[in-house]
Amino acid sequence: MGGRRTDRVLAARLEHADGAPDPAAGRPGRRPETVLVEEPLELRVDDVLMATTMRTPGHDFELAAGWCLSEGLLGTADDLTRITDIRYCATGSAVDTGFNTVSVTTAGGASGGGVDRTPRLGTVSSSCGVCGTDSVEALVARLEPLPLDTTVHAGVLVGAPDAVVDQQELFAATGGSHAAAALDAAGSVLVVREDIGRHNAADKVIGRLLLDGRLPVPSATLWISGRASFEMVQKAWSAGFTALVSVSAPSSLAIATAKRAGLVLAGFTRSGRTTVYSGLERVVG
Amino acid sequence: MGGRRTDRVLAARLEHADGAPDPAAGRPGRRPETVLVEEPLELRVDDVLMATTMRTPGHDFELAAGWCLSEGLLGTADDLTRITDIRYCATGSAVDTGFNTVSVTTAGGASGGGVDRTPRLGTVSSSCGVCGTDSVEALVARLEPLPLDTTVHAGVLVGAPDAVVDQQELFAATGGSHAAAALDAAGSVLVVREDIGRHNAADKVIGRLLLDGRLPVPSATLWISGRASFEMVQKAWSAGFTALVSVSAPSSLAIATAKRAGLVLAGFTRSGRTTVYSGLERVVG
Repeated sequence: MGGRRTDRVLAARLEHADGAPDPAAGRPGRRPETVLVEEPLELRVDDVLMATTMRTPGHDFELAAGWCLSEGLLGTADDLTRITDIRYCATGSAVDTGFNTVSVTTAGGASGGGVDRTPRLGTVSSSCGVCGTDSVEALVARLEPLPLDTTVHAGVLVGAPDAVVDQQELFAATGGSHAAAALDAAGSVLVVREDIGRHNAADKVIGRLLLDGRLPVPSATLWISGRASFEMVQKAWSAGFTALVSVSAPSSLAIATAKRAGLVLAGFTRSGRTTVYSGLERVVG
Repeated sequence: MGGRRTDRVLAARLEHADGAPDPAAGRPGRRPETVLVEEPLELRVDDVLMATTMRTPGHDFELAAGWCLSEGLLGTADDLTRITDIRYCATGSAVDTGFNTVSVTTAGGASGGGVDRTPRLGTVSSSCGVCGTDSVEALVARLEPLPLDTTVHAGVLVGAPDAVVDQQELFAATGGSHAAAALDAAGSVLVVREDIGRHNAADKVIGRLLLDGRLPVPSATLWISGRASFEMVQKAWSAGFTALVSVSAPSSLAIATAKRAGLVLAGFTRSGRTTVYSGLERVVG
């Protein structure tokens, strides 16, 4: 489940196009072009296919672990040791296929722990009506409120983009990747992950910390390169972060959920500024 | 199924936060803040719940229609008249709920037309292995190659961002929305849609054209505000666009899929420049 970057790993996430032409602005030309790899990943939990996501290969076990935690498949936050095995479902018959399916085995087993193991789409019911409040309340029923005696330093929020930028290797090479990072109370970067999807990048960060037995990190901040949607708040809450800080805008539902969670939520965090949408009283300094 | 914007419709997609504070950069202050609304939408096709997506309310019937087309639920491109009804699954019991479920009824019915109506996740199988090539080949099996005698003018690609910007009302108000637009062969904007998710924005554009009986539009371009992933190419191909042009990077799988489709694919289209990754020989001018 290694997390160390190597040239080999990086190459697996990059692909060299055959000289993408640039016909615009009256200066057409041909130049080498490096693009980000996108491949499907099947996530199986206790032999049930739970989801298929398009992701950038690499750190797949972290993605699987983080996704399981975010989706509530691992029980409550004080019982995070349920994963007993993560492996590729490799047939050995082809180079290209076996490494796009990850199987997670949990201690609870397929029917354990009262956890809903229904695949995340495909539920057929005759009921009519769903709303954002339902989505929030489903999290409230599953997750404990975050401790309200934690604080986060404004400098950590505002400084996150600069703290992370040097580790965004895929973005530097392609301009096409999202990123997520965990920062501790002092603003030190604990882990950075990049992916074509920002959901995946966040799950990889959370999964790394989970697999290292480090969750929840006290007074930690989850930084994301994109917008803060409901699902990003769900992930930050599930992992026990104190703050979620995004480069771009939060949604209405993200703000409402953060307030219910007791999560500090900051958006438009760039160029030395940020805007706090939830938990301002716990932003210090 | 109206598509005309009104102040009322716009307000439903915006929400006013209670003065978001801005503590950074030594100039804390409180200012009014408008945020983009995010709410879940359940999509039912012939009474089967096919997907739940987080979207910005508004143009929901377009979203449903476009999604069905993109996912191959409406048969082939020359048989696009399968939708017989689209309605909200409204109970009348609450203001907030009934309008987050859209039911699509098709002429084919639940078992018609040989179309796979399995919900898009949740398929349980014992097979092992999935890869990007499989994803591309599944589209090749379902969709006809695009006509290779069509061309697109470079000026349409490069000019798309400026052509669309004045109609990005939600972005102007919130900075939080993605956008998609259809442009005709002359570069005129046919329809623009905004949403918290760029997938939804594209589906709304495609759905509007579908419901108006305008698909495929000859030599048309689909512009998107974000990255070009596999799924965006899938949507453009399904709707019969000649070109897909994105503001940001394309992925490896997007490029591979566009080449199989015969779709012109351009990325990094901003500041008067673009980079063509597929179909350069059909970009003229």
